[in-house]
Amino acid sequence: MRPTLPLTLLALSLAACTHAPQRSDGPAASVPTTQEVIDASTPADWRPLDPENTVYLQLPSGMVVMELAPAFAPEHVANIRTLVKGRYFDGLSVNRSQDNFVVQWGDPAGDELALRRPLGEAKASLPAEFSRDADGLSFRALPDPDGWAPEAGFVDGFAAARDPKAGKAWLAHCYGTIGAGRAMAPDSSNGSELYVVTGQSPRQLDLNITTVGRVVVGMERLSVLPRGTGPLGFYTEAAQRVPILAARMASEMPPEQRARLEVMRTDTATWDAYVESRRNRSDEWYVHPAGHVDVCNLSVPVRPATAERGAD
Amino acid sequence: MRPTLPLTLLALSLAACTHAPQRSDGPAASVPTTQEVIDASTPADWRPLDPENTVYLQLPSGMVVMELAPAFAPEHVANIRTLVKGRYFDGLSVNRSQDNFVVQWGDPAGDELALRRPLGEAKASLPAEFSRDADGLSFRALPDPDGWAPEAGFVDGFAAARDPKAGKAWLAHCYGTIGAGRAMAPDSSNGSELYVVTGQSPRQLDLNITTVGRVVVGMERLSVLPRGTGPLGFYTEAAQRVPILAARMASEMPPEQRARLEVMRTDTATWDAYVESRRNRSDEWYVHPAGHVDVCNLSVPVRPATAERGAD
Repeated sequence: MRPTLPLTLLALSLAACTHAPQRSDGPAASVPTTQEVIDASTPADWRPLDPENTVYLQLPSGMVVMELAPAFAPEHVANIRTLVKGRYFDGLSVNRSQDNFVVQWGDPAGDELALRRPLGEAKASLPAEFSRDADGLSFRALPDPDGWAPEAGFVDGFAAARDPKAGKAWLAHCYGTIGAGRAMAPDSSNGSELYVVTGQSPRQLDLNITTVGRVVVGMERLSVLPRGTGPLGFYTEAAQRVPILAARMASEMPPEQRARLEVMRTDTATWDAYVESRRNRSDEWYVHPAGHVDVCNLSVPVRPATAERGAD
Repeated sequence: MRPTLPLTLLALSLAACTHAPQRSDGPAASVPTTQEVIDASTPADWRPLDPENTVYLQLPSGMVVMELAPAFAPEHVANIRTLVKGRYFDGLSVNRSQDNFVVQWGDPAGDELALRRPLGEAKASLPAEFSRDADGLSFRALPDPDGWAPEAGFVDGFAAARDPKAGKAWLAHCYGTIGAGRAMAPDSSNGSELYVVTGQSPRQLDLNITTVGRVVVGMERLSVLPRGTGPLGFYTEAAQRVPILAARMASEMPPEQRARLEVMRTDTATWDAYVESRRNRSDEWYVHPAGHVDVCNLSVPVRPATAERGAD
């Protein structure tokens, strides 16, 4: 089963996926609004998705676009690429939806190892990649305090945290963060079971599991899935599972069939202005600017690539 | 249209609604696990819901149980009671579902004032109740830092925040927190438009809008509603709206038809142990205890009333 991936609906739905401000009809105050920051941004403030790090997950309801984070989980990301290219996920399913926590997909055979689909050329066993060396990252720290880590901020579009003393950095479990499910052993994940956060940021998972990326577009296709009534939100009936029609690397698709998306860079003055527009809302509706923002309250803006920028 | 409220399904679904730990098959470490804390709790660690502060909202998919917070929004709560008793909500609908933000219900006529259902004996205009005097509350502060407020903690089961210098307290916008929708004017809410948080805690709304309570049971009936494709997640077609079959105060129902629920008290040593079990998970699965917990990562446990306790 190797269906091609129609991307038409994706382009149509992007307007709703970009991070719109709550209100944009108020007068500008001293802090620019989110919309004003985006309107004033230049092409250099945005970046295309790297086709080698982009996965299209096709569900019956439409497309989910995932961005992988090889800088944080190189072994898992390489294995996921191999799994996708080997068509491992095609015909598997979403098997778990736990309210205010995660949605998870992979082989519905679960722990029944004898029934599981073979991994093909992918590795069955990988090292745990819970954190990495903090050196060598373009880490844009937020000035705002974070209770879960000494520092929180962004690395190339990914919400992340850092411990300067320990010299370690890791991805933060925010809404849309994707991780590799594991059993009891820390090194029991291989990327064939993936979950995405669909509720309040479960930061207690940080440093306990390997995070591999994030959902860039299409979270609403996963977050609405009916909650499973089994333990941990697993579906109890096969018919409740949501089939994965296909998973493809963007690099496998002809360029004209790729989703042409731009993501706001997180290492620019425009990004800092965007953060400030979320920290202190100046939209007319707000009467009390928070003076604070949490790393997990900052969605990185995404938009269709402009005609000016051309194809990726 | 005044249907009675079948509560059968509610009781059956409660097991899935209680806050189960991720894993409970590991050996106990020095910090008791959540399950161990709950197992060791005594009847005095739990409280029944007050029927005068409990609203049953019946959707086609089943029941949602809301707990009102008159200590924080006395005028709005009184008005909501009047609206419910006047059957204002019966036959109205859920009109908005914005991904990672809120679900909102009320009159689908929205801003078309001439088409809106009359409020009956309820008031059309109320003062804004964004915060209250901090005195006179049983505020159980968390020792953990909160970036959004000088202090965060719990008041009678509600996630809350406090500013000791300003002498003010307010409910925190966490998953499940219910607020009263308003237009531009701070005093433009009256409780006839309600929203519930379905995503990452939007604490930037704190002190900007009147919060009136929380969902105790049935969040999964609201959080899965398809996201609206109009601005702010409003549904664009009437057929997409989810009807509210009925809303009733528990106090209006015969005692034997009420949902017999117990909520963990948030002012006891058992509560503190519960919080510690979430702050530093000792379940075998975890290899790195967080050493921190956010007020919005603490769901207050709820369970069916035990036979020993009898009916409310």
